[in-house]
Amino acid sequence: MRMTVRIAVAGASGYAGGELLRLLLGHPDIEIGALTANSSAGDRLLKHQPHLLPLADRELQDTTVETLKGHDVVFLALPHGHSAALAEQLGDDTIVIDCGADHRLTSADDWTRWYGGEHAGTWPYGLPELPHGRDALVGARRVAVPGCYPTVSSLALAPAVDLIEDEVVIVAVSGTSGAGKSLKTNLLGSEVMGSASAYGVGGAHRHTPEIKQNLSAAAGRPISVSFTPVLAPMSRGILATCTATLKDTAANVREAYEKAYADEPFVHLLPEGLWPTTNAVLGSNAVQLQVTVDADLNRLVVVAAVDNLAKGTAGAAVQCMNLALGLPETTGLSTVGVAP
Amino acid sequence: MRMTVRIAVAGASGYAGGELLRLLLGHPDIEIGALTANSSAGDRLLKHQPHLLPLADRELQDTTVETLKGHDVVFLALPHGHSAALAEQLGDDTIVIDCGADHRLTSADDWTRWYGGEHAGTWPYGLPELPHGRDALVGARRVAVPGCYPTVSSLALAPAVDLIEDEVVIVAVSGTSGAGKSLKTNLLGSEVMGSASAYGVGGAHRHTPEIKQNLSAAAGRPISVSFTPVLAPMSRGILATCTATLKDTAANVREAYEKAYADEPFVHLLPEGLWPTTNAVLGSNAVQLQVTVDADLNRLVVVAAVDNLAKGTAGAAVQCMNLALGLPETTGLSTVGVAP
Amino acid sequence: MRMTVRIAVAGASGYAGGELLRLLLGHPDIEIGALTANSSAGDRLLKHQPHLLPLADRELQDTTVETLKGHDVVFLALPHGHSAALAEQLGDDTIVIDCGADHRLTSADDWTRWYGGEHAGTWPYGLPELPHGRDALVGARRVAVPGCYPTVSSLALAPAVDLIEDEVVIVAVSGTSGAGKSLKTNLLGSEVMGSASAYGVGGAHRHTPEIKQNLSAAAGRPISVSFTPVLAPMSRGILATCTATLKDTAANVREAYEKAYADEPFVHLLPEGLWPTTNAVLGSNAVQLQVTVDADLNRLVVVAAVDNLAKGTAGAAVQCMNLALGLPETTGLSTVGVAP
Amino acid sequence: MRMTVRIAVAGASGYAGGELLRLLLGHPDIEIGALTANSSAGDRLLKHQPHLLPLADRELQDTTVETLKGHDVVFLALPHGHSAALAEQLGDDTIVIDCGADHRLTSADDWTRWYGGEHAGTWPYGLPELPHGRDALVGARRVAVPGCYPTVSSLALAPAVDLIEDEVVIVAVSGTSGAGKSLKTNLLGSEVMGSASAYGVGGAHRHTPEIKQNLSAAAGRPISVSFTPVLAPMSRGILATCTATLKDTAANVREAYEKAYADEPFVHLLPEGLWPTTNAVLGSNAVQLQVTVDADLNRLVVVAAVDNLAKGTAGAAVQCMNLALGLPETTGLSTVGVAP
Repeated sequence: MRMTVRIAVAGASGYAGGELLRLLLGHPDIEIGALTANSSAGDRLLKHQPHLLPLADRELQDTTVETLKGHDVVFLALPHGHSAALAEQLGDDTIVIDCGADHRLTSADDWTRWYGGEHAGTWPYGLPELPHGRDALVGARRVAVPGCYPTVSSLALAPAVDLIEDEVVIVAVSGTSGAGKSLKTNLLGSEVMGSASAYGVGGAHRHTPEIKQNLSAAAGRPISVSFTPVLAPMSRGILATCTATLKDTAANVREAYEKAYADEPFVHLLPEGLWPTTNAVLGSNAVQLQVTVDADLNRLVVVAAVDNLAKGTAGAAVQCMNLALGLPETTGLSTVGVAP
Repeated sequence: MRMTVRIAVAGASGYAGGELLRLLLGHPDIEIGALTANSSAGDRLLKHQPHLLPLADRELQDTTVETLKGHDVVFLALPHGHSAALAEQLGDDTIVIDCGADHRLTSADDWTRWYGGEHAGTWPYGLPELPHGRDALVGARRVAVPGCYPTVSSLALAPAVDLIEDEVVIVAVSGTSGAGKSLKTNLLGSEVMGSASAYGVGGAHRHTPEIKQNLSAAAGRPISVSFTPVLAPMSRGILATCTATLKDTAANVREAYEKAYADEPFVHLLPEGLWPTTNAVLGSNAVQLQVTVDADLNRLVVVAAVDNLAKGTAGAAVQCMNLALGLPETTGLSTVGVAP
Repeated sequence: MRMTVRIAVAGASGYAGGELLRLLLGHPDIEIGALTANSSAGDRLLKHQPHLLPLADRELQDTTVETLKGHDVVFLALPHGHSAALAEQLGDDTIVIDCGADHRLTSADDWTRWYGGEHAGTWPYGLPELPHGRDALVGARRVAVPGCYPTVSSLALAPAVDLIEDEVVIVAVSGTSGAGKSLKTNLLGSEVMGSASAYGVGGAHRHTPEIKQNLSAAAGRPISVSFTPVLAPMSRGILATCTATLKDTAANVREAYEKAYADEPFVHLLPEGLWPTTNAVLGSNAVQLQVTVDADLNRLVVVAAVDNLAKGTAGAAVQCMNLALGLPETTGLSTVGVAP
Repeated sequence: MRMTVRIAVAGASGYAGGELLRLLLGHPDIEIGALTANSSAGDRLLKHQPHLLPLADRELQDTTVETLKGHDVVFLALPHGHSAALAEQLGDDTIVIDCGADHRLTSADDWTRWYGGEHAGTWPYGLPELPHGRDALVGARRVAVPGCYPTVSSLALAPAVDLIEDEVVIVAVSGTSGAGKSLKTNLLGSEVMGSASAYGVGGAHRHTPEIKQNLSAAAGRPISVSFTPVLAPMSRGILATCTATLKDTAANVREAYEKAYADEPFVHLLPEGLWPTTNAVLGSNAVQLQVTVDADLNRLVVVAAVDNLAKGTAGAAVQCMNLALGLPETTGLSTVGVAP
């Protein structure tokens, strides 16, 4: 006999909310409860998520504590800064999985610098594949789902932190869905198609302190992070190119990655000679990695691919829910991508 | 206790083969046996299907009867003309599901005109949603999976055949994966991206007689088909615009579609005001439809979306396998698309 | 010694305005005067048109009669309904080229049905390649630039109007720039990429009466038009598939097209066996056509490609300006596309 | 009275050849002579370059010295290793502009390491915007056109070489046309669309030594280069993210760039706050740049956009031809892109 877990999704009309529902529809232990939105409250879900036919007739409700409470798990897929107030009122009998940034950073100063306002506090960080990453997640009542760029960047470099100097350079090419459904001119199809553009250049992207936090924690010393995101003409996927100078020319880099991820169900080091593509992880919870060393510079280069909406957001959220509930970590998740 | 069905896929390195494996990996009753290829035999599957991590280390074998026989079900995802010889030698203890064109047409003359050479015979046609479509598929030992364009076009127009005049006009916009991995200049990304182009214009596409066969069978009278496929810059998906003159200005078109598909799990008539997009069916076994009447012309216009690789090929193959095996028809299939 | 023509562009921050400026920068007889906008007034042009470096520092002014008057030619690239009031006040010493719909339709009833409100009147129609199309344009003081779909559809079918029955079916695949910079969810890159969708189905698109008007005028009898536009994942380009039943099985269709366009600098019937692609006309003023007959149905099929922003809007505007000014019609225009 | 320069293009069926012809058709001093190809010799140009209507009927000839000699300028757009033999036989009365790699590297050892075989010698390097870059190009009889990645990377970093440490990290996102019309599975539209992938990772791309050569020459000391190219789903365009640690926290980086490019017609430093997009330079000879400093790391970050086929190849070739012939350097070239 299986337990049925009743969940709610706040922010069900957006891309992260839609992806959560897509994955939860395939999860054998889940019953989908309340779906909430803001300006779209009152609409049928089909209008906003035409790919979720089994939920087509569900009505979006207002995002209120009253609507959300009483579920076993509440997923928050809200703009930054909207999670804390809701979460406080939900109580510890509800597991809250926050896909927003509110509870990711450990430093209140960092929060204030990068997001503004007061820090809402730090929750267990939802990247189990980091060193000791699972410890705080098993049985957790609150989880902060990592940002999409920090997920792929941290997994790409964490196994090497003892082998590298203190500064890493990351350039991550991303699809546009990471920006959500915001109505901005630069996100219009006519602007995006056929074009690449960088943004948040010079350390200005808010995921920078989160990557730094993860790598520094893994290293046990401060790691500096030069991070540049680049928008490419695709809906989903991030391909991160991550480089750092090796301390030692003789470092066995590949071995470090093999060891780190040997038992991880979702992080996959590709055989030598094959390189990741974002297509191969589309819709899946997998991260595909390849590593090499530029011998002329003694520089490590790691390339990693992730689906920003799946393992980069909603897949991680489901994975963390599984850990929080004591379910097998991979339940309802897959390493099979949708390609081509 | 569940039965486990052992399957093989011939043509496992191609797009149709990859999609079959993606779906079968999610099917609870399936054990994946031999995977075969032609020029790629000897390679690990990961090289050709990097999105299928659970099968990454599987070795592609030669496409021979020896390799394929002994499986409960053999899927053939081969170039046209290669299925018949293999199928003959497999015997009736093996269910054979042919994703190629060899056994779709009922008329040997049509076969010779459109494909050349001798007709290999006609198998039960794998489109259960056509009138009486399931009859020959339940318990079948051989199934001819429909072409992707005939699937979407036939489902778009079949409910209306009694209401329309004898000629239909179909323009279907398709992604490039329908052309397979053929190395042709016009299929290069540099040529395809940012560009639309028609092909097989003037009734020259081989799917034309198949659409005609389906609609004429549904109508009980000959239906003429003007069919033009258009290549658009996307990997997957077909959006078919199908029009025909109505016999009677008072025809209740919507009712005909509601009635035809009320109990169909995979064919979905959208609520009025919403129109199909191929994104919404990506990776799913769903067909999304909308119908309207151009009152100035008394002309029916139906727009339908399908994933050419999923419901358009591999999903239909799995659906037919379920029917052939006596499993619930929807096992391992989904109406949930991967969007955005 | 060359005359210099001083022009202004109203709506210079949008796509049509940007394309006008791109073309006019390459026109040897033009001096670019006032550039106006609405909500973007006060901005430097570079912010909105980063591809127009020679005009980077130009300031966008308010769209007022005061700003626009005094130029030899004023181009209006404004939302529908905004041209008439401005044009009236500009006086006949200024040539006004309206890229909007206000003055395209000859029937006031049609205007009211399709656009609402009172008809502003009919101006010379800017499609010189139609039969007698140049007559009213040479020396004109007012020009109504055709819609993008009517341009390609009318040129695709006009040479055949005497050969066909009275009803045509057109399905036109378009890039997204035709929708302008409107901030709508369905135009976001994440929604558009990888997806095709129809809109304005069932005769609901406002370009329908314009196509009908053109073809009926060319035929000298009413022609019915079934028109369906399909949005494809590309920024620019329209590929129109246009079909109609031939009256006579012996019609020499190709000859009709050869004759119609033999002397046209911008309309190009491709050699048999080659089919148009939108890539090939990107950025150019060319229309590429191919024609065939589906012998089974005795149905004409014409496929035509155009750049919706160039020949479909801004290129036509420049071509008409040339005619109005008595300059060689092809000045500043090209049949060379930017491909791949 | 203008001089007319008669040119030939070897490799006229490929992407670089097509772009050369597109630009040369707009050059007022050029007469287009022989067009040659290899396997496509005998075909009409239209079949391979459907966007070049004015040359549609030109026949592609064999690529031989006999065909090419007698022209004032011969452009070679051939695979690497094919230029030297032809160039030798052409004689000094013909200016030869080589778009291939054969004569770019100054070090014969580098050539042998990166390309294999014997070095054909070094020609004047066609990047006039580098320090002293024009000196050897004015009146040159032989020009080696730079690689596309070296063009954008070198221009992005050359003004800062005195301000930075000795190692630079470059990640360049590129469209697929840089790979030419090679029939490779990974270049198929179905593979490319919706996907990003890195290649030549770890210092393996052949453009690495060329970037190093340029930056080291500009610096007057060895500069190490970590270079990673990333393929994105677009036909044209490179967006390079280039970073390096600054020697001095007080460096006035912006001033260095303003000074370097103040008089350059094609290299454009954007106003602060605007970032380059590849769309904005599509089809143009412009390079758009923006610079910033990551203050936390004291690291320079430069983002630069170029059209790989235009300024990245064919535009540079025309610019160098102008210099070689003593024509104004910008003749026939534009800083106006085709967007959106």
